Amino acid sequence: MTVKMDAAALTVFLRDQFSQVADQFRIEEITEAGVTIRLIVKDSHLRPGGTVSGPAMFGLADVAVYLAILSRIGPVALAVTTSCSMDFMRKPAAGRDLLAEVRLLKLGRQLAVGDVLITSEGGEDPVARASFTYAIPPR
Amino acid sequence: MTVKMDAAALTVFLRDQFSQVADQFRIEEITEAGVTIRLIVKDSHLRPGGTVSGPAMFGLADVAVYLAILSRIGPVALAVTTSCSMDFMRKPAAGRDLLAEVRLLKLGRQLAVGDVLITSEGGEDPVARASFTYAIPPR
Amino acid sequence: MTVKMDAAALTVFLRDQFSQVADQFRIEEITEAGVTIRLIVKDSHLRPGGTVSGPAMFGLADVAVYLAILSRIGPVALAVTTSCSMDFMRKPAAGRDLLAEVRLLKLGRQLAVGDVLITSEGGEDPVARASFTYAIPPR
Amino acid sequence: MTVKMDAAALTVFLRDQFSQVADQFRIEEITEAGVTIRLIVKDSHLRPGGTVSGPAMFGLADVAVYLAILSRIGPVALAVTTSCSMDFMRKPAAGRDLLAEVRLLKLGRQLAVGDVLITSEGGEDPVARASFTYAIPPR
Repeated sequence: MTVKMDAAALTVFLRDQFSQVADQFRIEEITEAGVTIRLIVKDSHLRPGGTVSGPAMFGLADVAVYLAILSRIGPVALAVTTSCSMDFMRKPAAGRDLLAEVRLLKLGRQLAVGDVLITSEGGEDPVARASFTYAIPPR
Repeated sequence: MTVKMDAAALTVFLRDQFSQVADQFRIEEITEAGVTIRLIVKDSHLRPGGTVSGPAMFGLADVAVYLAILSRIGPVALAVTTSCSMDFMRKPAAGRDLLAEVRLLKLGRQLAVGDVLITSEGGEDPVARASFTYAIPPR
Repeated sequence: MTVKMDAAALTVFLRDQFSQVADQFRIEEITEAGVTIRLIVKDSHLRPGGTVSGPAMFGLADVAVYLAILSRIGPVALAVTTSCSMDFMRKPAAGRDLLAEVRLLKLGRQLAVGDVLITSEGGEDPVARASFTYAIPPR
Repeated sequence: MTVKMDAAALTVFLRDQFSQVADQFRIEEITEAGVTIRLIVKDSHLRPGGTVSGPAMFGLADVAVYLAILSRIGPVALAVTTSCSMDFMRKPAAGRDLLAEVRLLKLGRQLAVGDVLITSEGGEDPVARASFTYAIPPR
């Protein structure tokens, strides 16, 4: 799959379209299979005990698959999540950013599917996995 | 399943244990199958266009199943989400609270499963469905 | 949602299009929310110990959502499953048929979503729940 | 994770415990992350048009994760599937076996999680992905 938006272009897009949340995320890398996105963990992401909350991990996985899709099809602001599944396997390490590594598994005309492994920075074992399906509007 | 915590007890528990998010939720009703929880929609839940964000809906479903479990087993702060699936079916109506209606489908010694229908207040068609599994620590 | 195919029409369609598996299923009822489908449990569905296998339950849920969709949109042989999630909560009772009760949650132009509760006949507690998404070809 | 059962041991286990279905599957390889399992596609797996049925793919993914778990913990006949999600992305090629590549993502005392990519033999693009959670009985 040809790359249509690089990290710089995705960053600009994120700031324009999702200004409320853009400063939480950083595009780490455009990979062969998709992208890697960082969640810059802040106090607002934490639960008692210092662990990152479920909604923060969901938000990371959701944005990460979205950016992986855009990196291949270009800026399409109207793609919407239609379904997802997540498994939460370990507690994220306290005081570490999270990294979401996306593999785009399908990029069809109407539907795109990506799966995600989330790890704490510096850790090996995944803290969560996710798969997300997006509906893509007619282009 | 006997009710061990009523709406007042769940409200106190939520404030004690999850003070950061407690004011976003209201326990509407303890039902025969589970509970109904309201997300009091605020600006921080919204995406451009005025629709409630995916992470806000995830957070609502997650808390709602958790409170449904606690309503039947009593205060167990250490239950953790192990997996979930969600389908996003319609855009939530702008300017309306969301209601999450939980059915507890299983309440085992180690695992509990609940499913959730989320509707915009005053609307009939569900905006999302979810199912969540929690691991319950030995009691 | 108007009913376009009743139990008799669905039965004929199932025999015509899925002759290999049609005799395993019976359309019990067209309900207000969807349909109820019976799996006539045979030896080929069983695992050691007499319990119904996972693939048999998957097959039941998949067919049941498909028939629920067709009951409302008419015979569309080309709808395909795009995603699903299932939770297996209890062992099915040995020697009992399974009943799958479908609620159609969305019936859009491109995507349809249904959820399913599976019970052993005569039992109250669900043995499994499922949600299935189908892509519907342009009509 | 140390390997406790190799391909030969898994094959014997499968024949002993699941004699009804054992001849459908072949253990291709014990991998660093898990295992690769082949579904030897037969007429009974096919739908009209020659494509492999959904229940056959579910059964493959389910068995594959189970065997991946056993390869690391040894023969535990009582592990049970508690939840799963699947995405069906492309039609399997007609007349080809399917290969399921499992990554074990978690192997805890009570729960194990694996994800699966299914491809048609000789094809590159995945036809389906899945994640399965198993509950492991106390050892």
